[in-house]
Amino acid sequence: MFIRNAWYIGAWAHEVEQAPFARTIMNEPIVFFRDHAGKVGALEDRCCHRAAPLRFGQVVEGGLECGYHGMVFDGSGQCVKIPAQDKIPAKACVRHYAVVEKDEFIWIWMGDPELADESSIIDYPFHNDHERWPHKHAVYEIEASYKLMVDNLMDMTHVGYVHKSTIGGNPNVHVDAKTVVTPGDNGLKYVRWLLNSPPPATYSKVVEFKGNIDRWAEFEYIAPSSIIQWTGGIDVGKGAQENRDQDGVAIRVFHGLTPVTETSCLYFWAPAHGFRQDEPQITEALYREIDTAFKEDKRIVEAQQAMLLSTGEDRTVDLVSDAARIQMRRVMQRLEKESNPVD
Amino acid sequence: MFIRNAWYIGAWAHEVEQAPFARTIMNEPIVFFRDHAGKVGALEDRCCHRAAPLRFGQVVEGGLECGYHGMVFDGSGQCVKIPAQDKIPAKACVRHYAVVEKDEFIWIWMGDPELADESSIIDYPFHNDHERWPHKHAVYEIEASYKLMVDNLMDMTHVGYVHKSTIGGNPNVHVDAKTVVTPGDNGLKYVRWLLNSPPPATYSKVVEFKGNIDRWAEFEYIAPSSIIQWTGGIDVGKGAQENRDQDGVAIRVFHGLTPVTETSCLYFWAPAHGFRQDEPQITEALYREIDTAFKEDKRIVEAQQAMLLSTGEDRTVDLVSDAARIQMRRVMQRLEKESNPVD
Amino acid sequence: MFIRNAWYIGAWAHEVEQAPFARTIMNEPIVFFRDHAGKVGALEDRCCHRAAPLRFGQVVEGGLECGYHGMVFDGSGQCVKIPAQDKIPAKACVRHYAVVEKDEFIWIWMGDPELADESSIIDYPFHNDHERWPHKHAVYEIEASYKLMVDNLMDMTHVGYVHKSTIGGNPNVHVDAKTVVTPGDNGLKYVRWLLNSPPPATYSKVVEFKGNIDRWAEFEYIAPSSIIQWTGGIDVGKGAQENRDQDGVAIRVFHGLTPVTETSCLYFWAPAHGFRQDEPQITEALYREIDTAFKEDKRIVEAQQAMLLSTGEDRTVDLVSDAARIQMRRVMQRLEKESNPVD
Repeated sequence: MFIRNAWYIGAWAHEVEQAPFARTIMNEPIVFFRDHAGKVGALEDRCCHRAAPLRFGQVVEGGLECGYHGMVFDGSGQCVKIPAQDKIPAKACVRHYAVVEKDEFIWIWMGDPELADESSIIDYPFHNDHERWPHKHAVYEIEASYKLMVDNLMDMTHVGYVHKSTIGGNPNVHVDAKTVVTPGDNGLKYVRWLLNSPPPATYSKVVEFKGNIDRWAEFEYIAPSSIIQWTGGIDVGKGAQENRDQDGVAIRVFHGLTPVTETSCLYFWAPAHGFRQDEPQITEALYREIDTAFKEDKRIVEAQQAMLLSTGEDRTVDLVSDAARIQMRRVMQRLEKESNPVD
Repeated sequence: MFIRNAWYIGAWAHEVEQAPFARTIMNEPIVFFRDHAGKVGALEDRCCHRAAPLRFGQVVEGGLECGYHGMVFDGSGQCVKIPAQDKIPAKACVRHYAVVEKDEFIWIWMGDPELADESSIIDYPFHNDHERWPHKHAVYEIEASYKLMVDNLMDMTHVGYVHKSTIGGNPNVHVDAKTVVTPGDNGLKYVRWLLNSPPPATYSKVVEFKGNIDRWAEFEYIAPSSIIQWTGGIDVGKGAQENRDQDGVAIRVFHGLTPVTETSCLYFWAPAHGFRQDEPQITEALYREIDTAFKEDKRIVEAQQAMLLSTGEDRTVDLVSDAARIQMRRVMQRLEKESNPVD
Repeated sequence: MFIRNAWYIGAWAHEVEQAPFARTIMNEPIVFFRDHAGKVGALEDRCCHRAAPLRFGQVVEGGLECGYHGMVFDGSGQCVKIPAQDKIPAKACVRHYAVVEKDEFIWIWMGDPELADESSIIDYPFHNDHERWPHKHAVYEIEASYKLMVDNLMDMTHVGYVHKSTIGGNPNVHVDAKTVVTPGDNGLKYVRWLLNSPPPATYSKVVEFKGNIDRWAEFEYIAPSSIIQWTGGIDVGKGAQENRDQDGVAIRVFHGLTPVTETSCLYFWAPAHGFRQDEPQITEALYREIDTAFKEDKRIVEAQQAMLLSTGEDRTVDLVSDAARIQMRRVMQRLEKESNPVD
């Protein structure tokens, strides 16, 4: 069951060039392309003539040309040319999707395009500010439900076990940290402070701390599948809890999970750093560190998905550390019901 | 649904040597072999003892010996030897298929062998005339229904899009060509003339034309799955439409599609050239050119099949250029009904 | 249908080190590990919290720690630690399996652990006597039912066909050998004597015979899936049938088949030789020879399984040489019924 009436990240803006580019989202084959005016379109990747994938075609004047028998479709999915005949039948059209290019994302609305409201798209200005928040973009293909990937980001006690040798460090530090969860209408926020704790390997590589640090991790879940992370650390004794705008580590990560099938998804992520901004090697090093860590997540969550598929979803036990995760799932379930009315 | 009571190409003659050679046709595992007298046999590739595939065996005096426990079967599928016992039970036999070696093809009848009528096999004398029609044989495994492959050969407007850089050339030339379709009892013929048109890249490589040419493409569909193509081009002004037996390009291609499963098939093809016959490098060059072009067909038709499998067969729109294809499908459907009676 | 209330080989002892080691048996994901005291445990490879596989964890004081959120389980499957909370819920546990380390095997009981009776495990003292019976261990993953693998060992007429160039030799020698089958309560024994026959290639490589030999093959099937083989050969005229404790070839092979799914299994085998025991190169050479031969079995039995899957299990014919096999299947079916009562 998918939540269709919502915006998802369909691609990074830089991924969509003029050449058609295909992706499956919610089991639907979609072809993205950029027309001669630079506007991004998203159509069903299936010609209405004989079902050939449109991704084998090319962008021409007027739209996207099928690579099999040459029909051309505009951004609304309407056929505007059939090479060997003059009259275009009314039913010669393919499904189109509402798409918006914003903050370096291509957002796609998977429900009825008439209901797509651009004003409800998340603002993420950091991606437009490469000077203060330099960053790189990544996308993974994950063999697990997007729900399990969101789960993973809602329970930070995993950090000390899954990421022992990367961003984790001592497990107890993460286990002992208090988590304050604040529910919201369309998601939730939670904040964790790891006060007076040793900096993890990743941090020490990029900033020279004096000793222990006050470290925070703030996560905002915006349903159905975006997570905005703000993480950092400052030397102990500088009053980090009152003012985080000081020298130290400050990282903002956008996590976007887009369902491919019920049990696979795309994971779009980008880490932006608010320190040593004029050093491109830091952007690169941070990206590499996080790439290593997120592949640790990918590995365990994919194994978890495979296990759930072979042994069923029941027989699980909720723990105290699942508070944010359970809250998140409640929001998700409400939206699933709204998006899939029984009548 | 398959058309069983018909002849199909099971293999090229040169593929069947004494060593057993297995192929799946219409979901049935079949083993071809050549006995000590040189006669080709085709049996169910499944020993009647414990279902071991007979392809692991060897040809011995009397027939094909199973490689597991040594039972021997003759060309009619009857067991003629059981190593550890004298009496051969009546039910110790495997299914056999009627096969005929002719014109370098191994034709196989997939229905009741009693109904197999050799006189109904297509004559293709060009394969026996290597001097006037030198040629090479090919076979592809195609991940698509044989029907989609026949479809592809019934609508030539694809040539300008799929084969743009090989045998295609300017798409408009193909789109504008008139097609005359002549239905027949057991198939159809269609002829296309591309008058006063530039020769495609493939033609110019093998014959030096003065300028534009009169180009023809003649296709005969013989149900259920053979297509005989005669294609060529002659300098403009030589009256090609009245007499095609002049200097220029002349190519005959046999296309045979044999169902493996409902959604996969074998594609046997061989191009024979009626010009520069004493130059083996032309035979090779022509084969390479066509191999490249037919792999373009393979790529798009396999993608079309995958799309039909994931999105269903409905929601398609017939175009004017589908005339021959629709006629062909009518013949196919009639034969499917005859071959699969409801009662 | 599996026979659960029985002991199977889960692993060779040397395979289970401290690091967790996962295997699927009877469709169940199992993780083996060795605790700090050296005791082997076997748990369901699925954490009770969120179903992450426990194989990603590590052995700690007290048991096996999950690699996702750090829960620890002891050898009985009981959770003994949850990092972020003090109280451990009663249902926080995973399934455990009875395991016994004996004779270099890790035996596992796939039914109710309460019913596991260690005294019913096969004795195989040869594995503890490396001086008189040097040997090496192997395990294959077989894409076929364990039943087909046991079948294969119950009909030795296959040796001359499948192993023509290795342990086989002349097929007629094997076909003509008399087989004496002795049924037992929990299996059967059969003995074959190939009197005054040429030694096979494998034998001649390791022992210098004067000419023909008297060769025996003794197989004991112990339900559900162990086969103990004693094979050898002695120069003709030495009275081998009365006394097999003479110079020549003497090989003991343990065969253990453990179901992974209905149509795949693990094949544990180890050949021990009772001649030239102080020459490690003989141990190695014998292992290599048998490895080659058993891969011939693997190849044909996997092809047989694939054929049975695609064409069904009916339409087979029993031969005279199937006597031991049919007897074995009767025992197996009785145990299947006992282990899967209808009510």
